[in-house]
Amino acid sequence: VTDSWASSLDLHLELPAGGGRRAALERALRAAIRDGRLPPGERIPSTRALAHDLGLARNTVAEAYAQLTAEGYLRTSQGAPTRVAAGGDAPPAGRGRRATPGGAGAPAAPRGTPVRFDLRVGVPDAGGFPRAAWLRALRRGLAGVPDAALAHADPRGRPELRAALAAYLGRARGVLAEPDRIVVTSGFTQGFGLLCRALGPGTVAMEDPCLHHLRAIAPAAGLTVAPLPVDEQGARPDPPDAAAAALVTPAHQFPLGATLAPRRRAALVDWARRTGGIVIEDDYDGEFRYDRQPVGALQGLDPEHVVYAGTASKTLAPGLRLGWLVLPERLVAPVLEARPLVGGDTPVLDQLALAGLIAGGAFDRHVRRMRQRYRRRRDALLDTLAGRRVRGVAAGLHLVLDLPPGEEAPLITRGAEEGLALDGLAAYWHDPKDRPEGLVLGYAAPPEHAYAQTLAVLRTSLPR
Amino acid sequence: VTDSWASSLDLHLELPAGGGRRAALERALRAAIRDGRLPPGERIPSTRALAHDLGLARNTVAEAYAQLTAEGYLRTSQGAPTRVAAGGDAPPAGRGRRATPGGAGAPAAPRGTPVRFDLRVGVPDAGGFPRAAWLRALRRGLAGVPDAALAHADPRGRPELRAALAAYLGRARGVLAEPDRIVVTSGFTQGFGLLCRALGPGTVAMEDPCLHHLRAIAPAAGLTVAPLPVDEQGARPDPPDAAAAALVTPAHQFPLGATLAPRRRAALVDWARRTGGIVIEDDYDGEFRYDRQPVGALQGLDPEHVVYAGTASKTLAPGLRLGWLVLPERLVAPVLEARPLVGGDTPVLDQLALAGLIAGGAFDRHVRRMRQRYRRRRDALLDTLAGRRVRGVAAGLHLVLDLPPGEEAPLITRGAEEGLALDGLAAYWHDPKDRPEGLVLGYAAPPEHAYAQTLAVLRTSLPR
Repeated sequence: VTDSWASSLDLHLELPAGGGRRAALERALRAAIRDGRLPPGERIPSTRALAHDLGLARNTVAEAYAQLTAEGYLRTSQGAPTRVAAGGDAPPAGRGRRATPGGAGAPAAPRGTPVRFDLRVGVPDAGGFPRAAWLRALRRGLAGVPDAALAHADPRGRPELRAALAAYLGRARGVLAEPDRIVVTSGFTQGFGLLCRALGPGTVAMEDPCLHHLRAIAPAAGLTVAPLPVDEQGARPDPPDAAAAALVTPAHQFPLGATLAPRRRAALVDWARRTGGIVIEDDYDGEFRYDRQPVGALQGLDPEHVVYAGTASKTLAPGLRLGWLVLPERLVAPVLEARPLVGGDTPVLDQLALAGLIAGGAFDRHVRRMRQRYRRRRDALLDTLAGRRVRGVAAGLHLVLDLPPGEEAPLITRGAEEGLALDGLAAYWHDPKDRPEGLVLGYAAPPEHAYAQTLAVLRTSLPR
Repeated sequence: VTDSWASSLDLHLELPAGGGRRAALERALRAAIRDGRLPPGERIPSTRALAHDLGLARNTVAEAYAQLTAEGYLRTSQGAPTRVAAGGDAPPAGRGRRATPGGAGAPAAPRGTPVRFDLRVGVPDAGGFPRAAWLRALRRGLAGVPDAALAHADPRGRPELRAALAAYLGRARGVLAEPDRIVVTSGFTQGFGLLCRALGPGTVAMEDPCLHHLRAIAPAAGLTVAPLPVDEQGARPDPPDAAAAALVTPAHQFPLGATLAPRRRAALVDWARRTGGIVIEDDYDGEFRYDRQPVGALQGLDPEHVVYAGTASKTLAPGLRLGWLVLPERLVAPVLEARPLVGGDTPVLDQLALAGLIAGGAFDRHVRRMRQRYRRRRDALLDTLAGRRVRGVAAGLHLVLDLPPGEEAPLITRGAEEGLALDGLAAYWHDPKDRPEGLVLGYAAPPEHAYAQTLAVLRTSLPR
């Protein structure tokens, strides 16, 4: 089933060829309602539309809807669209939460119309995930790993992965990484939480705008957040002198897309040396640069004052939950001491698979292939946006479309009515009042086959 | 290489048949010293012993030691054992940390002599891990999963796994579990941290004794810990009325081993109903019961007042980092809201593999096979301890050997001198002063082939 409504819901429609199709559809819809993928009040496609999308007889869909209405899952009233009944046992959270640049929690699209087209940020094209290579690497890793490695999780992560990452990060991102200084995490959200605990009480400067859900991590660990303004040269390199740390996205500012200017890179490192603060470099999409070689990591300038943070979420898939920190020596012990309080050790087998993928070269080949794909997508998006003001196009998996005041929210609503999910800038500002408006257009989320149609829907949604 | 010193260190000795053996050994030892598996001051086996263990010429080992001494990795002095040099770049934490009943962090064995025999608690026999079945389940899961599932982590966990767990837990543990109420975690440490945040500030009653590292989780989330005394009937069912929660281990009290008496089960549930508190049932090894059918979960008595927590760490391997919570309805939303602050979402593919393993029956077969293995081991341990006072023998992967005052610490030291790692009760008491002494003997850790020898070393270490 490749229908975008059904597949965006992750409906497991295993429709047998024979007469069990209605039952299979009912089962899939019940499951989606029960576990909240279809929340109460959600509008369901018409029987005609769903029948067309799934290649079923319209009567089959109508009978399934009638059955589910009788069972209390759906609510149908004359002349109104069919909706999920309210007061079911759908859980109160979960839907709409998505993996994002740092790891988790971008804003959901407005409800009402199912998401059929998705230009939100935070996910790669999972259709490119190298399933066969991953399985091969996992099989080899599992064959070679001693029993003891399955029984004893290493809080720093498997030595094989740390060795592979040290070599890869040095080669591909200019990171000065010793395996001893690497801690494998379940992604940047966890890594930032560990760093906050390791840095202790104090202030952390965070870019304004930045990934919103990260702003909640620091206070939960006892830190105060200070905004660090961003302009076309990236973050301003003047965090408060008293700040314990400054979190920045030098390769491709999230969300605005600037590359941190060379002078500012040096100035940030100077700030850290002068004050004893730590620069945290969130390199969430640094592998993807389209106009030239990727900009090397800031960490290479001073590994004792910069924490480098990377992730497999953009290069492979967020569902792997694999990230890493490269730490200054003085932070290794505090981060490892914080780990038992968080409890999110990383599974051993996934680490072995990634280590094998990197060491065997398949990871580099995959990144090169995806870079070409994303470049084509970016170029097509730029064609669609021709004549409009865009930013942050040189790198990453998203760009920003600037909008005049008052246009952001209506445009998101208009997109939602067409089934097109869009992210606005508003959520990312520390305080969105009087801030520039715009769309943060992620071009990696749609499946490859749906990309052209997604851009066509965007084109019709945009103001003239 | 099956030598216990080398393999317990996880030395990756890929010794080619030809002349590269010395270089390979040097490389492996350097790596082990660099990343802290061999900490500064650690004693290295004699050249004779290691040569014998690895099937190398003694001269090859001696040359490798000489080279590493010249490079500053080792310290050799006439007539004294060779040791790892001090002041290396070994990281300050990590070694000795082990997965434990709740997830992580049991006390390390005393240093000085390499651990050759291991009767510490907290790990299963990873040699029984069903590698082939796991790979098969993973391959099938990966073949069937839609791309979108790789891109969007569900904070509750994959629907396939929650459905499989709901059925399994109902069947095997008497848990009343709806998939909606299940949250997949990376183990009980993370689960308990999520619960502490969800329960908000207040007091949590924790068994005395209990798994020590869990006592640090609650304060980190803003809760106060109150001790809940334990006797031969399990935990006393009278937590403070004002407590937000009581954490208990009803099937097999950790570490003392009692099964919670039926009257106390009812009394605990009554406490929760009367006060509005929550009972947290840590069912860390409930699958393993040797005298009769496993005792059903306490949660079955009142799913709206009891949280059930389970794990794959004892049934499969801690390295998988897979656990689960079954929640009362009122806790589902608060736990999911706490999740983005912790960031430890569970990788998708491991969840699919476990779901397939359970649904296909391989998990049940594996548990039955391991139950027989552990039962044989327990019986052999009881033979070794004949005539001594033991407790908690009916279930789980450990039992307690009672000791007279003043004997616990010397016995652990004596074992360490023989290369036998032992856990004492002391670390588990909230305050060990004037508390009963004993050994907590885990019989799952040794590889199958080393078990008999491990018991022989224990026998010689025990006082007459």
